[in-house]
Amino acid sequence: MVIEKNDRLILLTNDDGLYAGGLKTLLEVMEQFGKVVLISTVESMSGMSQALTVKTPLRVKLLEETDSRRVYACNGTPTDSVKLAINQLLERMPDWVVSGINHGANASVSVLYSGTMAAALEGCLYGINSVGFSLNNFSPAADFSACGEYIRIVMEMVAREPLPPGVCLNVNIPAASRQDIRGIRVCRQAKGNWKEEFEKRKDPMGKTYYWLTGVFKNHEPEATDTDEWALSNNFVSVVPVTVDMTAHWYIKNLKEKFGE
Amino acid sequence: MVIEKNDRLILLTNDDGLYAGGLKTLLEVMEQFGKVVLISTVESMSGMSQALTVKTPLRVKLLEETDSRRVYACNGTPTDSVKLAINQLLERMPDWVVSGINHGANASVSVLYSGTMAAALEGCLYGINSVGFSLNNFSPAADFSACGEYIRIVMEMVAREPLPPGVCLNVNIPAASRQDIRGIRVCRQAKGNWKEEFEKRKDPMGKTYYWLTGVFKNHEPEATDTDEWALSNNFVSVVPVTVDMTAHWYIKNLKEKFGE
Repeated sequence: MVIEKNDRLILLTNDDGLYAGGLKTLLEVMEQFGKVVLISTVESMSGMSQALTVKTPLRVKLLEETDSRRVYACNGTPTDSVKLAINQLLERMPDWVVSGINHGANASVSVLYSGTMAAALEGCLYGINSVGFSLNNFSPAADFSACGEYIRIVMEMVAREPLPPGVCLNVNIPAASRQDIRGIRVCRQAKGNWKEEFEKRKDPMGKTYYWLTGVFKNHEPEATDTDEWALSNNFVSVVPVTVDMTAHWYIKNLKEKFGE
Repeated sequence: MVIEKNDRLILLTNDDGLYAGGLKTLLEVMEQFGKVVLISTVESMSGMSQALTVKTPLRVKLLEETDSRRVYACNGTPTDSVKLAINQLLERMPDWVVSGINHGANASVSVLYSGTMAAALEGCLYGINSVGFSLNNFSPAADFSACGEYIRIVMEMVAREPLPPGVCLNVNIPAASRQDIRGIRVCRQAKGNWKEEFEKRKDPMGKTYYWLTGVFKNHEPEATDTDEWALSNNFVSVVPVTVDMTAHWYIKNLKEKFGE
C-alpha cells in the first residue's frame, strides 16, 4: 500500500482481537473513507483500560497488505498498539484513529475501563481526530449490520469539522435492527458504577479463587440526556470525551479548603 | 483486627507491589488515622491504568494481621484489588481509599495510565473518599521522608470535609527535602502527552521487538496553574479528578453539528 500525500490515512484498532466481527465491519466502512492501517491485539483485551506494557517486550507482525489496507497484529494492549503504530509503523501521522466496533457497550463509567475507548483517547493525546465505536451486544456473534450507516454519519461529520484538541468521541450503538434505531443523540456520560459480584470458587487443590463479574447500576435512570438513556431508548449515543480529568468546577472550593 | 463501629476504616493499596518503600511510608501514616486494610498487587503494576482482570481468576492471600492492620496480597491489578477488598474482604465499606505512594509522578495525562490513580478512581466510583499519592522520583530507593507531613495535611482536610461525589484527589509530591518543599498548590491537570520513543532491538533469533520508553512533553510550560508547574517549582500539587470524562462544554456545539 502506497500512502499518497492526499490520501486520508486511518489507523484502525480494537480490543476484541483480530477475528472479531466488529473489527471486520469497521474495516469495511473505513476502506470507503481512506487507506487503512489496522493494528489489532492478537487476543481479546477487554477491560484493559489505557494500560501500557512496560515489563515485557512488544512484538508486531505484518499479516496482510493490499492496495487499500495493511494489517498488523500486536501482542500488547490497544494503547500499546496505537503508540507503536504512530511511532514505528506509519509513514506519517494518521488523520484519524478509529477503534472498535466493540462487542459490548462502553457507556457511562465503562469509558474508564474500556480498551476500545483507551485507543481513541491515545489518538486524541497525539492530536488526532479519534472515535471509538461500540455495539450494545457482548456476543461474539453480534449482528453489526445496522452500524455502518451511523459510523458513516459520525465520520462524515468529523471529516467536515475536526474535533477540538483533547476531545474524542464515544459512540455506542443499540443492539437493534436498522428500522428500530431512532437516530443519533449527543449525550453526557451517565453517573453510575459497576456493582461487582465476584464468583467465589474452589480449585481442585481446595484453594479459593474469584471470577470478576458485575452488574451496572445507573445512578440517574430518570435523566434523559445520558448515554445510558439514549441506548435504552434505541438511540445511537455520541459522547464527547475529554482527556482532561480535572474537576475544574471544584478547584476554587478546594483552594479555600487549603487556605490558598 | 476488630473493626469497631466508630473506627475509621482505611483501604490502602498501590501499584508498585508489596515491598515498595512508598507503600510502607503510606501505611505508617495511615495507621495514625485509623484501622488499615492493605491490599497490594504482588508485583509491580505500573502503567496498568484502570485495567480489570477478566480472563484469569483472582487470588488473594492474608499475609499479616495485627490490632491495627490487615495485609493482603492480590494477583490482579490495583483496580481488581480495590473491587475485591470492597466486595469480598471488608466487613463494611471503607471510609477512605488511599493509594500510593507511587514511585514516580502521576501529573498531567499520566493520570490516564496510572494504576495508583485508577485505584483512587475506583474507590471514588463506590462513593468513598479517595486519594492517590505519588512522589516525583521513580527510584525504588526514593526518599519518602518529606511525604508524611503533606499526606497528613491532605487527609486531615478530607476528614474535616468529605469530597463531593465523583471527585477524588491526585496528589504529587516533589522529590525535594522538607525545607525545600514550598507548600501545597491546588492545580489543574497540565495539557501534554508522552512522546513515545520505542527502543527497537533484535532477539537472539534475529526477530524484532520493542521496549516502550517515552518522554513527557508539557504543552503549556508557561501556565502557572498546572500540576506540572507546581511540581517543577517544588510545590505539592493537588488536582481534583473527576470520574466524568464528558467534555460538557462541547455538547451544545456537537448537537448543532448533528442537527439536534
